Amino acid sequence: MFSMRTVVFKPDRDFVVTESRGKLYEELLCSINGMYHISCRKEGREVFIPFSFLEKYYEVYGKLTKNRGHEQFEWSHSYSKVFKPTTRYNSSGMFMYFSNYNVEVRDRVKCISATEGVPVSTQWEASGYYYPVQVAQYGLSHYSKNLSDRPPKRKVLEDGNLVTAKWQVPKGASVKRNYDYEKFTHVLEFNSHDSPGISLKLKQGIDLVLSFDLRFLSMNGSLTIFLEDRDRSTIFPVSFVCSPVLIHVLNSSAGSYSTNYGLGSCQNWNQLTRDLHVDLVKGHVLSGRGKKLSKTKLRIHHLLIKGHGQLDNLTLASSNHMGMFYSSADWLVRHQDSSGGWPIGVKRKIASGKADLDPGWYSAMGQGQAMSLLIRAYYRSGKSHYLEAALKGMKPFSKSSTEGGVRAYFMNQYPWYEEYPTVPPSFVLNGFIYSLIGLYDVLSLAPHDQVGDAQLLFDQGMHSLKKLLPLFDTGSGTVYDLRHFTLGLAPNIARWDYHSTHINQLLLLSTIDSDPILTTIASRWISYMSGKRAAHN
Amino acid sequence: MFSMRTVVFKPDRDFVVTESRGKLYEELLCSINGMYHISCRKEGREVFIPFSFLEKYYEVYGKLTKNRGHEQFEWSHSYSKVFKPTTRYNSSGMFMYFSNYNVEVRDRVKCISATEGVPVSTQWEASGYYYPVQVAQYGLSHYSKNLSDRPPKRKVLEDGNLVTAKWQVPKGASVKRNYDYEKFTHVLEFNSHDSPGISLKLKQGIDLVLSFDLRFLSMNGSLTIFLEDRDRSTIFPVSFVCSPVLIHVLNSSAGSYSTNYGLGSCQNWNQLTRDLHVDLVKGHVLSGRGKKLSKTKLRIHHLLIKGHGQLDNLTLASSNHMGMFYSSADWLVRHQDSSGGWPIGVKRKIASGKADLDPGWYSAMGQGQAMSLLIRAYYRSGKSHYLEAALKGMKPFSKSSTEGGVRAYFMNQYPWYEEYPTVPPSFVLNGFIYSLIGLYDVLSLAPHDQVGDAQLLFDQGMHSLKKLLPLFDTGSGTVYDLRHFTLGLAPNIARWDYHSTHINQLLLLSTIDSDPILTTIASRWISYMSGKRAAHN
Repeated sequence: MFSMRTVVFKPDRDFVVTESRGKLYEELLCSINGMYHISCRKEGREVFIPFSFLEKYYEVYGKLTKNRGHEQFEWSHSYSKVFKPTTRYNSSGMFMYFSNYNVEVRDRVKCISATEGVPVSTQWEASGYYYPVQVAQYGLSHYSKNLSDRPPKRKVLEDGNLVTAKWQVPKGASVKRNYDYEKFTHVLEFNSHDSPGISLKLKQGIDLVLSFDLRFLSMNGSLTIFLEDRDRSTIFPVSFVCSPVLIHVLNSSAGSYSTNYGLGSCQNWNQLTRDLHVDLVKGHVLSGRGKKLSKTKLRIHHLLIKGHGQLDNLTLASSNHMGMFYSSADWLVRHQDSSGGWPIGVKRKIASGKADLDPGWYSAMGQGQAMSLLIRAYYRSGKSHYLEAALKGMKPFSKSSTEGGVRAYFMNQYPWYEEYPTVPPSFVLNGFIYSLIGLYDVLSLAPHDQVGDAQLLFDQGMHSLKKLLPLFDTGSGTVYDLRHFTLGLAPNIARWDYHSTHINQLLLLSTIDSDPILTTIASRWISYMSGKRAAHN
Repeated sequence: MFSMRTVVFKPDRDFVVTESRGKLYEELLCSINGMYHISCRKEGREVFIPFSFLEKYYEVYGKLTKNRGHEQFEWSHSYSKVFKPTTRYNSSGMFMYFSNYNVEVRDRVKCISATEGVPVSTQWEASGYYYPVQVAQYGLSHYSKNLSDRPPKRKVLEDGNLVTAKWQVPKGASVKRNYDYEKFTHVLEFNSHDSPGISLKLKQGIDLVLSFDLRFLSMNGSLTIFLEDRDRSTIFPVSFVCSPVLIHVLNSSAGSYSTNYGLGSCQNWNQLTRDLHVDLVKGHVLSGRGKKLSKTKLRIHHLLIKGHGQLDNLTLASSNHMGMFYSSADWLVRHQDSSGGWPIGVKRKIASGKADLDPGWYSAMGQGQAMSLLIRAYYRSGKSHYLEAALKGMKPFSKSSTEGGVRAYFMNQYPWYEEYPTVPPSFVLNGFIYSLIGLYDVLSLAPHDQVGDAQLLFDQGMHSLKKLLPLFDTGSGTVYDLRHFTLGLAPNIARWDYHSTHINQLLLLSTIDSDPILTTIASRWISYMSGKRAAHN
């Protein structure tokens, strides 16, 4: 329920009447449902209601804008957008409208881990954890951006062999290039000894995505990128260091700060792909400076390496979406358990104490999004371990929520794959549909003789979806889940961005399933976004 | 969906600015969801929206009123009322707020039949039919009025024995009073022969409810009441005649009309209780004069009897609610079939062709309301045939809708008693709750050893109700039924009077069942009536 302030209004009789176009313009008291009063206006027989009241009462949106020099007021019933698909959904193509997502800059992403190459979430636990749904969305957004964006500019700076950079090596320090029998390639070996470090000056450029392979032969060491904010003429160092700490920020006296990302066990080869703008922003936030840091003013000033180690494939690019995509895919391969699930290590509270999920739960949405990502990784790379992981990801779909799976039934009859496998079930709509898309992607791209239960799981899920969809329809919007039914609570109304997600998902499904219920319901739900309502009797 | 007119607005720049309290008052274009424009007003930073737009867009209600001499505007989110019970519901007391009902004056009531003494509905068939739900509501409203109104004024005019009227008997006609061996009482025997009829002048009074027992010994005959509209100085005759016709209206040249009610086989004793105002209004409507006919200006001028027959217990009263109540009870006893049902003789169409009901269907609401009425008739009269009919009325509750009963199941699990026993079920909420109240009334007033399945049916129904109630909650109102789920349609939003009926019913149940879900949901639904909404996520 939204709260409403009671406005006490004192009629002011000497401010009443002005005249325009022969009509009286008056101040008028409006009694709202006999509960309180607000100040309205009257002109002829028309009464005018102040928008400051309406925006709270109806939660409608409005703003003053200019249209061809004339001021106008834009009334918006909802703030969200629908993406109407123009072609049939393609499992090897972009994932929905995820090319618009910037998962890593979200507030609830603490940073991109330097050891894992994937985002760390703080959504339900401030200390941070890996959330498979977020990891998969990070990967799917970069996969989609790779298809939607222009190809990246990319410059190899040092590969230990054909391309060599001009390192500034102080006295006592050394660099050499030699063949590494573990990596089967030439690498740069550096040793800063007691010097301040080996540096590399870079030509001013706007590209901020840096990739490199790095390992240390010493116990300590670091690779630091010095970023210049040209607006402030300030230098911000971002370091990758031998440390188990995820991210650490040190404020310096000069109004700057340094951001350190831990490499974990740095004596193994680490393959990193870093968006340095994002890396700096996360330090910016942790240093207490907020998240506003313009990317366009940022330049790489120079690099500095310390310690004794090896470096290879140092590359600067405008983007490296596929690198980030494979970081996610590899993370998912590494962290899938023997049940095929990606366990979520935090407690999830649903509806204040009712139906909590203890750490270790799987999410059908996480499984589905991971499958969508892994099967794309298989499609692009041809590597079978991605396929195997995608197929294994289906296993929790056949196991009940009560037994650690994600499968629930509506009234013992309609199977549902639970984003949150609570007992009793919560029947979250958008997560269920994401899980169906994951199944569909596996069906579409996996070899026919290996898809296992994917067809059955998808068909059963679509059958349930079509039957239960009307229960999510409030006549003026949608509910996010069916917890009102299973827990006897107030309906959990979907805010407009979830409402539009529901619609976008139905529109996607309607390109692969011609049942008119999908488009009929999507059209009705679209109409709700501009104030239409279902008829009353 | 409601339709919205596109308002084309031409900015009119020389009508723009007036000044009040130092703020500019301007005309401003409002763009509504980017779809069309309306003319708004602006004063400082506040934008004012015309109510003529809002009332269509949001279906909200408003009117200009005076409050202590000052004009004000009353904004109403809904138009309906909630009656908060102050005491525990009592099965022998008033039925809900039915004392406010005037069933017989509703447009869809053609008239009160003179043969049956109950209303004839035209709701789903223009030619008219007896609708058990309406018959029961007619009786229950009069039962309730009898408890809420002050006791009637009542004057016996003629009983053939102790009270005798001063009949004006023309030459050739005769009246005599003798003992009737069929009726075991003295009666008035009249014979108008070839005269214009035997008349009785009545003292001017405002009482308009006339009761009498009448039979004819001749083939034809009539009893006519001449009503005077003192505003128009016009006389309107209302006749009860030997005819199979329900109601017949004859316009006369003098700007008046006569209304005839058929007595059917008039050679049997007919016991009539007539609200002459209602009888005249129904003729007024059929004569094409509309339904506006003030009761306070109406007086009985005189009575006229024609033919050869017998008359007894001629009584004039300010009301005769119990007479009307028993008319309904007796009709229900006469028309109950061997399955315990009151079959409804018209086709009922639900959702354009889907799930139609063929003539002969029972309504759980009809059964329940009839049971509420009959058990009260038993309670008041002690007559066992009312009890027997009430108990028999439960029989269709145990029989499936698919087999001619009224019992459906939500997802094979939760029994529901169907106001409209469609296949698939429609799960109408208000009718279901009326059926539960009927069961409760039987449970409360029938002898314990005779209640049969009433307790089981009531308990099962309450269990279903509590479980399924949240499915009727849209977060800003209620749905009338669950047809959106069973037929895959848009939600059938309950208009405000049904919404308040839902609330009133839950509040009634909450006085006999302490489960907090009833009051919790009722409170939430009450809050929707003043614009509150369930929270979104």
